[in-house]
Amino acid sequence: MSFKSPVSDFQFILQNVVGFQKVSDTERFADATPDLVDAILREGAKLCDDALAPLNAIGDSHPARLENGIVRMPPGFDGGFRKIAEGGWIGLTADSVHGGMGLPTTLGSAINEMMAGACLALQLSPLLAQGQIEALEAHGSDEIKALYLPKLISGDWAGTMNLTEPQAGSDVGALRTQAVQKGDGTYAVTGQKIFISWGDAEFMANVSHLVLARLPDAPSGTKGISLFLVPKFLPDAEGEPGERNSLHVVSLEHKLGIHGSPTAVMEYVGATGWLVGKEHGGMAAIFTMMNNARLGVGIQGIGVAEAAFQKALTFARERRQGKAGRSGTIVEHADVRRMLIQMKAEIFAARAIALACAVAIDLSRADAGPAWEARAALLTPIAKAFGTDTGVAVASEAMQVHGGMGYMEETGAAQYLRDARITPIYEGTNGIQAMDLVGRKMMDEGEALYRLLDEVKESAGHARSSSPTLAEAVGGAAVSLRDTTEWLIGQDANDRFAVAVPFLRAAARVIGAHYHLKAALADPGSARTALARFYIQRLLPEHAALLAQIRQGGAGLFDLSPDDLAS
Amino acid sequence: MSFKSPVSDFQFILQNVVGFQKVSDTERFADATPDLVDAILREGAKLCDDALAPLNAIGDSHPARLENGIVRMPPGFDGGFRKIAEGGWIGLTADSVHGGMGLPTTLGSAINEMMAGACLALQLSPLLAQGQIEALEAHGSDEIKALYLPKLISGDWAGTMNLTEPQAGSDVGALRTQAVQKGDGTYAVTGQKIFISWGDAEFMANVSHLVLARLPDAPSGTKGISLFLVPKFLPDAEGEPGERNSLHVVSLEHKLGIHGSPTAVMEYVGATGWLVGKEHGGMAAIFTMMNNARLGVGIQGIGVAEAAFQKALTFARERRQGKAGRSGTIVEHADVRRMLIQMKAEIFAARAIALACAVAIDLSRADAGPAWEARAALLTPIAKAFGTDTGVAVASEAMQVHGGMGYMEETGAAQYLRDARITPIYEGTNGIQAMDLVGRKMMDEGEALYRLLDEVKESAGHARSSSPTLAEAVGGAAVSLRDTTEWLIGQDANDRFAVAVPFLRAAARVIGAHYHLKAALADPGSARTALARFYIQRLLPEHAALLAQIRQGGAGLFDLSPDDLAS
Repeated sequence: MSFKSPVSDFQFILQNVVGFQKVSDTERFADATPDLVDAILREGAKLCDDALAPLNAIGDSHPARLENGIVRMPPGFDGGFRKIAEGGWIGLTADSVHGGMGLPTTLGSAINEMMAGACLALQLSPLLAQGQIEALEAHGSDEIKALYLPKLISGDWAGTMNLTEPQAGSDVGALRTQAVQKGDGTYAVTGQKIFISWGDAEFMANVSHLVLARLPDAPSGTKGISLFLVPKFLPDAEGEPGERNSLHVVSLEHKLGIHGSPTAVMEYVGATGWLVGKEHGGMAAIFTMMNNARLGVGIQGIGVAEAAFQKALTFARERRQGKAGRSGTIVEHADVRRMLIQMKAEIFAARAIALACAVAIDLSRADAGPAWEARAALLTPIAKAFGTDTGVAVASEAMQVHGGMGYMEETGAAQYLRDARITPIYEGTNGIQAMDLVGRKMMDEGEALYRLLDEVKESAGHARSSSPTLAEAVGGAAVSLRDTTEWLIGQDANDRFAVAVPFLRAAARVIGAHYHLKAALADPGSARTALARFYIQRLLPEHAALLAQIRQGGAGLFDLSPDDLAS
Repeated sequence: MSFKSPVSDFQFILQNVVGFQKVSDTERFADATPDLVDAILREGAKLCDDALAPLNAIGDSHPARLENGIVRMPPGFDGGFRKIAEGGWIGLTADSVHGGMGLPTTLGSAINEMMAGACLALQLSPLLAQGQIEALEAHGSDEIKALYLPKLISGDWAGTMNLTEPQAGSDVGALRTQAVQKGDGTYAVTGQKIFISWGDAEFMANVSHLVLARLPDAPSGTKGISLFLVPKFLPDAEGEPGERNSLHVVSLEHKLGIHGSPTAVMEYVGATGWLVGKEHGGMAAIFTMMNNARLGVGIQGIGVAEAAFQKALTFARERRQGKAGRSGTIVEHADVRRMLIQMKAEIFAARAIALACAVAIDLSRADAGPAWEARAALLTPIAKAFGTDTGVAVASEAMQVHGGMGYMEETGAAQYLRDARITPIYEGTNGIQAMDLVGRKMMDEGEALYRLLDEVKESAGHARSSSPTLAEAVGGAAVSLRDTTEWLIGQDANDRFAVAVPFLRAAARVIGAHYHLKAALADPGSARTALARFYIQRLLPEHAALLAQIRQGGAGLFDLSPDDLAS
């Protein structure tokens, strides 16, 4: 069996778990009726299952490569990208003024997850374009918007993000790329950027690079960073690709996975660029792009997890081994069944968290109140880190279900682990996400989290009569998470950071249980209830172990010196 | 920095944690004095650090390949293997009658871990030879012993294990390879075997295959399996490789990792073989080989974890990013420090468990009493599964410490994850190990585990005055694990199997805490105490979450049908 987009799960979660109705009730997203949502999910699924999924293995075994300055792409990627572009999928959530569909991010997130499950290496390109579209919509001048947005939305031009330099990764403020005013309103950009996903591709008519750089008088650190748009070809008077700009791909990386995605070292040598946003205001612009890209990467992890799970389930239903149940296949073995159910339960939790985050983004965009902005900000690092950790864990477990076959590259299970493994790293490592959660996202003294935990307690209250055991477990977990959060907020930054990762995971466990409980309430006695029971009774208890860890803060962490660790 | 064998950790654990003194106190292992142990560890470390570690990346980028029937090996592997052989490392624990050194398995395990950390793909070859040596020592005829053991011990000939067939993996009883008496005391073996590690290599003068097959009158299942020794070249009158036997390598697998290790599909076409052990008694013989191979594979996981940890630590001490402490490197970031300490704490726990298992094997061989045999049997699946899970987890976390660099193959961090990922699969998947633990290893009604838990309570008692918090945590964990074990033993097989994996992990958590506590007691106030505190206060609490999961048994697991999972 090949990849099948999980359309019914999206429909169920939108309707019953994350309150998508609130989004379609807004004026801005009034078009997103249930019928339209269904039609779009089905159309997207067709694209993913039929056109993109067959490219996944091809991209893996035919890595992008640099040949005389041209980035050669895996066979079929051109056609796959065209199908994504022509279906309007790149600009699904973009403003209709420039050719987008103006639909909710929630819907765009569901489509992105399907595309990532079908072919992660290829899906990264539209994801990057979407990030650039959002950044330009928010911070671009009218001229830039008019020129670039239609090209990015149509997929005629690609978009990239250029942040990282050899000495500036997680610490973006350490970057050195320079931009100098040329006197004609443009800037000359000079420097080297690394790890640039989809830095170029032979079938792109033009590539629009968003580049972080410093002006000559810039203050040090992140306050001195400006954002520039630097196209591969300078647009001519008609807005078509004209003169070649002085930038080029130096080399492509040899990576563990996503081989079909060209990861470039980019060299800018006085390349012509345009300022986006204000001078020294690059971080604000990049944060717009990054926040949604972070949700987008969390969703990539979930997409790969779904595809890996499906592959493992298919194998387990076909593989005969030992004496097992009626079917005689290993899916009847208790331990294999446990693995598969756990995978599905984790995927559901991660998916619901990501879509709840997307709903909050949509509601904040539709001016439904400032609380939604806070909710989106709170859930973004959780969606990113938990989604991508789930991607790696599920892909690894899917290999395990395959036994020895899983280790053979021909099987295709190993590719999911190799591909998924980038997602906890890029777009801010999961450690950075966790520090964002306990740092910036707790500057409200826990307000946004407590509001969500109030909702958890509320749904636990609703479940009390129908599912007392589950209700008690979830309600109790919300109380203990709140207690520990209150304690954590009283600690200094280093203590918080020392336990940021377990805190994020504990929060994800509790919030995931909340959405499982809502699913069980919406569809009592069903398989969804059985899945919720599995998650709440078997996986949720992990949160207590994590809370115990969190209460240690940074105590004793620096008692072990680097020399101690090395000895 | 390149790989550095953790000699001082082995010395400390042997002396202070796993009671190696008891082994050298026996008559059989009286030679294994502290001085000899030190000398051997240092000599082994020299081999591993200087000669083997440099081969690791070479093996990865120059996979073994089949060329006109010859298995071409990575450059340097011939020389590396020769150094292992000439140093006597293959036969370190083999009987001195046939050229072995007759030293304890505990010491052999430490050496094997170093070799695995240095170059896993290469170390697999001596590990397989050791398994074959043990099987022949226990079950081979005098003629076979005299002919084959000196050759295997000297490394002139290689040894392999041929169990798996396409339809017979975890269910070895399903195998179909046939063996027919030829009337001259030999057998004609016919069939196909897959996943045969080191099935052949260009620099081996001969390869001795141990092959599981069925005699024509054999009962079905595992009771009808016999073991045969089938050499690539039939020994001539002088015992040198003579006539070519009718077996060959059909193909080599394209694997996720351990590229330097040739994984073969083997075809036997009436190949001449000799019975090892009794007719239909193959499983008994294979169990001898497998039990020690399982410990050996657990140790492979730990070796890779150590190497990956060292690489991450070195990177963290060199990488400057953000404002961090005195050194300005990321090792001063609380989250990075946490990751590194956790890696080291997990490695210590896994290593202590593996070496405690090895001590029990040695003591049972030295006739120190039947309880040691039961201890070895109990710890073997735990050492295998926890060691290899630690290998994968630590290798993955080591990539995370590297950030984006970790995803680039040139860095070398990704190779550890790819290599380690086979270890939870081969030599019995970790699911099989867990079922062995809650099934076969609990046929004593928990006796062996309770004896160990008594020791845990005892060391908690010793720690009560010096480290009351740690003592209470460890002692309490032992009590709750015992309670849950008693409950589990009362459940039926399917309920046990449904929670076998969390049970094994809970047991490993508690036993690991026990050894950490012993380390802290032996070296109070040291870095080892700080490491023990980290493990006991931050990681041990996971056992409570696992016990909650275990108490669910198989409840509800089969409420979710395969169709439910697919929908």
